[in-house]
Amino acid sequence: MLDIWSHYPNVAQKLNTVSSLINEHLSTDNPDVQQLLADLSQEQGKMLRPGLFFLFAELGDNHEQNEEQLLRVAASLEILHKATLVHDDIIDDSPLRHGVVTIQSNFGKDVAVYAGDLLFTAFFELLIDTMNGMSMMKDNATAMKKLLFGELSQMHARFNQKQTIENYVENVKGKTAELFRLACLEGAYFGKSSPEITQIAASIGENIGIAFQIYDDILDYTSSSKILKKPVLEDLAQGVYTSPLLFAIAKKPQAFAPFLDKKQNISVTEIKNVSNLVHKLGGVKDAIFFAQGYTRKALEDIDKLPQNKITASIKELTTSLLNRKF
Amino acid sequence: MLDIWSHYPNVAQKLNTVSSLINEHLSTDNPDVQQLLADLSQEQGKMLRPGLFFLFAELGDNHEQNEEQLLRVAASLEILHKATLVHDDIIDDSPLRHGVVTIQSNFGKDVAVYAGDLLFTAFFELLIDTMNGMSMMKDNATAMKKLLFGELSQMHARFNQKQTIENYVENVKGKTAELFRLACLEGAYFGKSSPEITQIAASIGENIGIAFQIYDDILDYTSSSKILKKPVLEDLAQGVYTSPLLFAIAKKPQAFAPFLDKKQNISVTEIKNVSNLVHKLGGVKDAIFFAQGYTRKALEDIDKLPQNKITASIKELTTSLLNRKF
Repeated sequence: MLDIWSHYPNVAQKLNTVSSLINEHLSTDNPDVQQLLADLSQEQGKMLRPGLFFLFAELGDNHEQNEEQLLRVAASLEILHKATLVHDDIIDDSPLRHGVVTIQSNFGKDVAVYAGDLLFTAFFELLIDTMNGMSMMKDNATAMKKLLFGELSQMHARFNQKQTIENYVENVKGKTAELFRLACLEGAYFGKSSPEITQIAASIGENIGIAFQIYDDILDYTSSSKILKKPVLEDLAQGVYTSPLLFAIAKKPQAFAPFLDKKQNISVTEIKNVSNLVHKLGGVKDAIFFAQGYTRKALEDIDKLPQNKITASIKELTTSLLNRKF
Repeated sequence: MLDIWSHYPNVAQKLNTVSSLINEHLSTDNPDVQQLLADLSQEQGKMLRPGLFFLFAELGDNHEQNEEQLLRVAASLEILHKATLVHDDIIDDSPLRHGVVTIQSNFGKDVAVYAGDLLFTAFFELLIDTMNGMSMMKDNATAMKKLLFGELSQMHARFNQKQTIENYVENVKGKTAELFRLACLEGAYFGKSSPEITQIAASIGENIGIAFQIYDDILDYTSSSKILKKPVLEDLAQGVYTSPLLFAIAKKPQAFAPFLDKKQNISVTEIKNVSNLVHKLGGVKDAIFFAQGYTRKALEDIDKLPQNKITASIKELTTSLLNRKF
């Protein structure tokens, strides 16, 4: 769980219950998949999506809320996130995720394909448990679709030195921000906020998500493998060119071409050279400024909400996500 | 589409509409995935599941039926089937499916992972369109789960010369029969048959599915690549030991061990040797007898239904599935 949640004991407590719920949902008598599912449920991420969900749920009317429903919807968000991670790790060939060996690296790609599918099924089951017959079902299907389109579109843009920053943001909106958007939207909705507040929550979620992803991409250029608990500059080697690089390329494309033209055959030293160039040309600084723009948009929207202890917490969290170390 | 459907013009016509519906559902403005989705929707299988669905729907009260709903539920069955095929082809590393180059072979494994996920999403969307709020949603989620457990369990049993025929049938029930079961169950349900008939339909579907898969495994030992439009004995090379082989191993395990102990390093000639041994030891004959048992169970259940033109067609189809050439 992200350290941040220790500052919000109320949320932290609920996130623990969500973890248990996920464990429960991924437990099975089937000896063939028992270990796999146990590993999947033990792998703890930042729990950002369910955490944001609970913060936004607190905005609404406590007396009208269904605690059990809230916990299950929160679990559905984390499970959908896990499902996409398992399949992303296949694509990325990642050996590590949060410092833990990935499913595909531990059990093989084949198992990882089905493991992700099982998580999609668990997600689907939780939706049926909590919102069967509600229009929010449709919102979930749409989010899942946008998420995948974002991933596919990012894959399509691989090794494209001419990828525009607009295209990059579109992909980020899909692959990352859509689930943040859904988390905040559902938090407000199931927390029984008004439709107006629910709409603002969705917009806040999207902007937090975009800023979060841009900052994630920045950390790839500024942090170390030890702190990030995953290999750095892996995206670059795999042809996923993120904002720090795209801003730098825009300034001096000819400086990057000799390296990037090598595509997947780029060496570790050359990757280091590219990273140095990105820093030198201000790509990291530009990207930070860019991320701050989306954080600012989120903060402006938060100001439109009734100002109280909860909105102060949401504000604080939004800002702190751009100051994190991993 | 399976030739068989030409004998049922009413069903054939509906299956054409289902194909168009699938095309529609897999069309997108997104240029990155347009071609991929177009390829996915053009790949025409036997359409067995939606075909069975329509036959069972005809058992019910025509006046109470919602034609649009029937078409969409039928499409959901075929799309779920396609989703599992795309992911199976990744596991099997199959170059061909129905004589057409597979997604993973044409676009790469990475795209195939997401393509399958997109199909799961399209499946999910169709369910929301047709049965949001109905308990049948839960049946679909359960079917999807059993399907995946069947696949995972089959994967777990790879290269296991001691796999029992009971274990094989359990896996077949999951990976194949569950979707046949769902198709017949939903056909009766959305066709507005009584709960009793709906339950019998589910049981018929399961037994047809088991017989179908056993026969599919038999064809692998008796047909040619040209007729099957896919490589034969591919399962064997990949450690998936099906009923003809399992029956033969049970009779003379020591004859197979020298070949099968080589696992994935088995040569083409050795595979041919194993196949000859299977025939010699009566494995194919045993498997045919075994499949016939499930067909008989299905026919007994069909006899419990009101006897009319439709049930005669269902009977005919059930029998003909064990006489097909591919």
